[in-house]
Amino acid sequence: MNLKALRKISYGLYVVSSGRGNEINGQISNTVFQVCSSPPVIAICINKKNLTYGLIKENKVFAASVLSKSASMKLIGRFGFKSGREINKFEGVKYKIGLTGVPILTENVVAYMEAEVIASIEVKTHTIFIGKIVEAELIENEEPMTYSFYHEIKGGSSPENAPTYIKEERIKKGYKMKKYKCKICGYIYNPERGDPDTGIPPGTPKVATGLSKLSPYNLPFL
Amino acid sequence: MNLKALRKISYGLYVVSSGRGNEINGQISNTVFQVCSSPPVIAICINKKNLTYGLIKENKVFAASVLSKSASMKLIGRFGFKSGREINKFEGVKYKIGLTGVPILTENVVAYMEAEVIASIEVKTHTIFIGKIVEAELIENEEPMTYSFYHEIKGGSSPENAPTYIKEERIKKGYKMKKYKCKICGYIYNPERGDPDTGIPPGTPKVATGLSKLSPYNLPFL
Repeated sequence: MNLKALRKISYGLYVVSSGRGNEINGQISNTVFQVCSSPPVIAICINKKNLTYGLIKENKVFAASVLSKSASMKLIGRFGFKSGREINKFEGVKYKIGLTGVPILTENVVAYMEAEVIASIEVKTHTIFIGKIVEAELIENEEPMTYSFYHEIKGGSSPENAPTYIKEERIKKGYKMKKYKCKICGYIYNPERGDPDTGIPPGTPKVATGLSKLSPYNLPFL
Repeated sequence: MNLKALRKISYGLYVVSSGRGNEINGQISNTVFQVCSSPPVIAICINKKNLTYGLIKENKVFAASVLSKSASMKLIGRFGFKSGREINKFEGVKYKIGLTGVPILTENVVAYMEAEVIASIEVKTHTIFIGKIVEAELIENEEPMTYSFYHEIKGGSSPENAPTYIKEERIKKGYKMKKYKCKICGYIYNPERGDPDTGIPPGTPKVATGLSKLSPYNLPFL
C-alpha cells in the first residue's frame, strides 16, 4: 500500500468560517465538494479539534470562501496556521457578515457560498458537514487557488489538523531541500523557488533574503 | 444568489468503480476528498440513479482511479456518458481486480485507492460513501487531470447525474459558441479549440474536421 496515492486527489483552497457576533472564526480547508445541484448542497470536512468545528456545530451554519491564486502566504498563514483561540483572525482582513450571521472572507476570494447544515457525520478525527446553500456570490474575476498550486508554486505545507497531513513527508522534504519554516505562520521558505510574493528571485539563499527582518511571515525561521 | 460561485470549487477527475465477478461497473466522478489521515479515509459522492451506486451499496467496497491529463475523451466518454446497464465499460480498457474484488481502471491513471465503506449518508439525489483505504498505489508518473482542465482544455461537459450539472449553462454555451456535441459519448467539439487528442488545430470548423467519419467519439454530432 502506497498512501502517496492519496496525494493525487485534486483540491481547491478555501477559508471555511462560522460563528456569530464576537464568537467568529475561520480556517483554511481543502476539502469542499458539491453534493447535489437540485437543491444546491455542498459538503466540507473539518477537524474536531478546531475552533471552527465547534462554531459550526453550535450555529449550524458555515461559509466557504474560494481563495484566489493571488492570496498571499500571509493570509493563508493567518487562517491556516494560527488558532482563533488566540487571535481574532478576521481582524485586519476584508470580510462581511452573511445572511446567516457568519463572517465571510472577501479578500483574495473568487467566490463564496453560505450554507445551513442539514446533516453531519463523524469520521474518526474529522466531521463532514453537509450544508444547503442559502447564499452564493462571485467576488473577484481571478483563477481559484488549487491545493497543488499552493504546494508547488507557493511552497505551502499542511497543518497537523488537515485531512491530508503527512508527518514523515514534511520532515523528509524539509531536510532534503534545505527549506526553512516559520515557527509562527507555518510558511516554508524554499531557496530554489525564492518568494514570489515579496519579489525574491529563485535561487536566493535564506541568509540573503533579509526575510528574518523584513518578512511579513512572523519569523524567526526554524 | 449566484450559483456560478459553486463552479469555483476545484476538483480532480476519477473513475469510481465497484462490483464483483460479472457484475462490475465504473463511472466518472469529480467528487472525491480525503476525510482523515489516521486511519486513511476518503469520501465520494455518487448519484443514486447510477449503476455504480447500487454496486457500492451491495458490495460495500469501491475503488477510485485518478485520471491523468493524458486520458482521452473517448475513455472519459466511455465511463462518463454511457451506462453500464447497456455495455461492459471495462471491455477493451486496462484494468485489474483489486484486493476486495472490485475492478480498478489502470489506463491513463496516476494512482488508485481501494476502500471499504464504513459509513454513508443520503443527501437528496446523491449519497456520500465514506471508505477506509485498504489498498492504494501509484501507477503513471503523470499529472492528475483536473475538472477545470477537462472543461477548459478538453472541452468536456457534465452528464445530468453529476453533482455539478447545470442545464441552463450547457444550453447557453452550446448556442453561443457553436459547439457540437456527440449524442452517444457526450463529447463536445469546440471549433475554437480544435481537438488536441486527434491533432485537429484550433479554429477548424466542424465540417472540415472529418470527425463525422473518422472520430473515435461515436458520432453523429448534434
